[in-house]
Amino acid sequence: MSDITNIALDAMGGDNAPAEMIKGAMDAIAKEPLMKVFLVGREDVIQKELANYQYNKEQIEVVNATEVIETAEPPVNAIRRKKDSSIVVGMKMVKEGKADAFVSAGSSGAILVGGQVLIGRIKGVERPPLAPLIPTEKGVTLLIDCGANVDARPSHLVQFAKMGSIYMEHVLGIQNPRVGIVNIGAEEEKGNALVKETFPLLKEEKGIHFIGSVEAREIPHGQADVVVCEAFAGNIILKLYEGVGAVLIQKVKEGMMTTLRSKIGALLIKPALKATLKTFDASEYGGAPLLGLNGLVVKTHGSAKAKEVSNTLTQCVTFKRQKINEKIKECIQSDGASVE
Amino acid sequence: MSDITNIALDAMGGDNAPAEMIKGAMDAIAKEPLMKVFLVGREDVIQKELANYQYNKEQIEVVNATEVIETAEPPVNAIRRKKDSSIVVGMKMVKEGKADAFVSAGSSGAILVGGQVLIGRIKGVERPPLAPLIPTEKGVTLLIDCGANVDARPSHLVQFAKMGSIYMEHVLGIQNPRVGIVNIGAEEEKGNALVKETFPLLKEEKGIHFIGSVEAREIPHGQADVVVCEAFAGNIILKLYEGVGAVLIQKVKEGMMTTLRSKIGALLIKPALKATLKTFDASEYGGAPLLGLNGLVVKTHGSAKAKEVSNTLTQCVTFKRQKINEKIKECIQSDGASVE
Repeated sequence: MSDITNIALDAMGGDNAPAEMIKGAMDAIAKEPLMKVFLVGREDVIQKELANYQYNKEQIEVVNATEVIETAEPPVNAIRRKKDSSIVVGMKMVKEGKADAFVSAGSSGAILVGGQVLIGRIKGVERPPLAPLIPTEKGVTLLIDCGANVDARPSHLVQFAKMGSIYMEHVLGIQNPRVGIVNIGAEEEKGNALVKETFPLLKEEKGIHFIGSVEAREIPHGQADVVVCEAFAGNIILKLYEGVGAVLIQKVKEGMMTTLRSKIGALLIKPALKATLKTFDASEYGGAPLLGLNGLVVKTHGSAKAKEVSNTLTQCVTFKRQKINEKIKECIQSDGASVE
Repeated sequence: MSDITNIALDAMGGDNAPAEMIKGAMDAIAKEPLMKVFLVGREDVIQKELANYQYNKEQIEVVNATEVIETAEPPVNAIRRKKDSSIVVGMKMVKEGKADAFVSAGSSGAILVGGQVLIGRIKGVERPPLAPLIPTEKGVTLLIDCGANVDARPSHLVQFAKMGSIYMEHVLGIQNPRVGIVNIGAEEEKGNALVKETFPLLKEEKGIHFIGSVEAREIPHGQADVVVCEAFAGNIILKLYEGVGAVLIQKVKEGMMTTLRSKIGALLIKPALKATLKTFDASEYGGAPLLGLNGLVVKTHGSAKAKEVSNTLTQCVTFKRQKINEKIKECIQSDGASVE
């Protein structure tokens, strides 16, 4: 029985819920027989959507939750008041051990607050970071933290480096992942106060492969596998990636449409271009785990479609099989200084 | 005589010096008769390059400086020791009133240090920010500060907003420029400690058109004309712009080269695409001024070519004609609290 990964999926969260959430679940269970997905949300809405599919009934269960937390709601209030929301109900399933993981495309704020309040941190973890995979020239890089803890302290960043290394090594299969700290120059003496304090701590840390400072320019080139930063900087990186990407692709499209000659050219290159740009699309790589909790919580993009949902569900299975939380526990707690 | 803008140009700084620096100067003086450019650097090298051109001898003067500050040199030491470097000699010309502006593609660190130490701040200006123009969907935005003052305080950011507004209004001609503060969410209660403290100050400030928080995702869409941030964040924004842009353009090129069909398409779209992407190329818009000094200092990209150099020289003329420093002085000093 313990071979099965039980995942609570927020069927109501995100721009494309419930249709794409449920389609993603269907794709994932078809590929992975040892996965069970609990679709959390309004039962009538979910059942209506499920009627469109043929699937193994043992792998899907609907869990009724009548409320929905909206993106604009103040997170702390929402978590406290909407006890029958898909986010609260799904997270409680993780807390109670009924699910190994909770996946949602809903309100980031509510997911971050709920993860800490409802599920709780692994003993010794000071701050759970949100860690999305971002596309690079060569593959993907883990950006940790991208939004959970603004104004973090050096000891938090050291824990991010450790947790991020475990995730990249055992979930993504990257041996001895290179860890870099986001900085404004390559030299050790560069940086703001936080980076200057954190740099020597990371350098001393034996369990990680620290390669030093990474300038923002080098992140898309894939200079490091784990990019450590405080959440304000991380959020800028994540969102600027999206913004610059969107505007540049728009410019390319405009460029292709300016002349008759270029329009014909556009038709010819379209399929090849689409395939290449897909390798630089963050949503291809699944959601962002909130690491360091007593269970797994993954936030997918608000605009997540079935593919991202399906990839995320599959990552949850790897996360459980590779015993990531046991590894985080061991790593954090072996460092006496960090244990509460 | 005072109608002429005198500019000291570092003929030795940057990857393409001296050839592109001198070509840029030639292009600029040909367009602007009321400009005189002092080419600062090794006289023999400069004269050899000048021999390739026909030009108005009254608009060009060579100022010998035998040393060159390398990019990797520790800036404070370099400024102190290399008294006959092109950066020190050029900046001293501004200090002594022989030049209105100094333009360099050389070491950022040396330019930032030299500007403050050799030229000095306008009375009342707490920290001079480096403010590049970055391309957006709609035009350009001033990113202020992108690297001069890490761990800045709220009062510094308020001055950045004021100086940036003056620059955009009077050098770029944007009426009532929209000022935004870089933040991790659109709501007022979001942000790190610095942003939370700065936000209400900007809101109260009467001389600027403050539009609130700007998420990094919205910067490339041109949501604000002046984007205010602390230098660590600004440096990340500037460099990630370059990094994501470079990798995406590379991906587009790869995509176009994958099949015979796409290769033919690529030939057809190339000219149109090149023209469109040019509008999203930062180097088209000239260098980054270091604002708030007793004179103008402009840092161009290390990779600057003639076009960027020429655009920068022309901006120096506008800066002088529009009396930007007088306007900054008036604006900063009218605010009693900020006067030293």
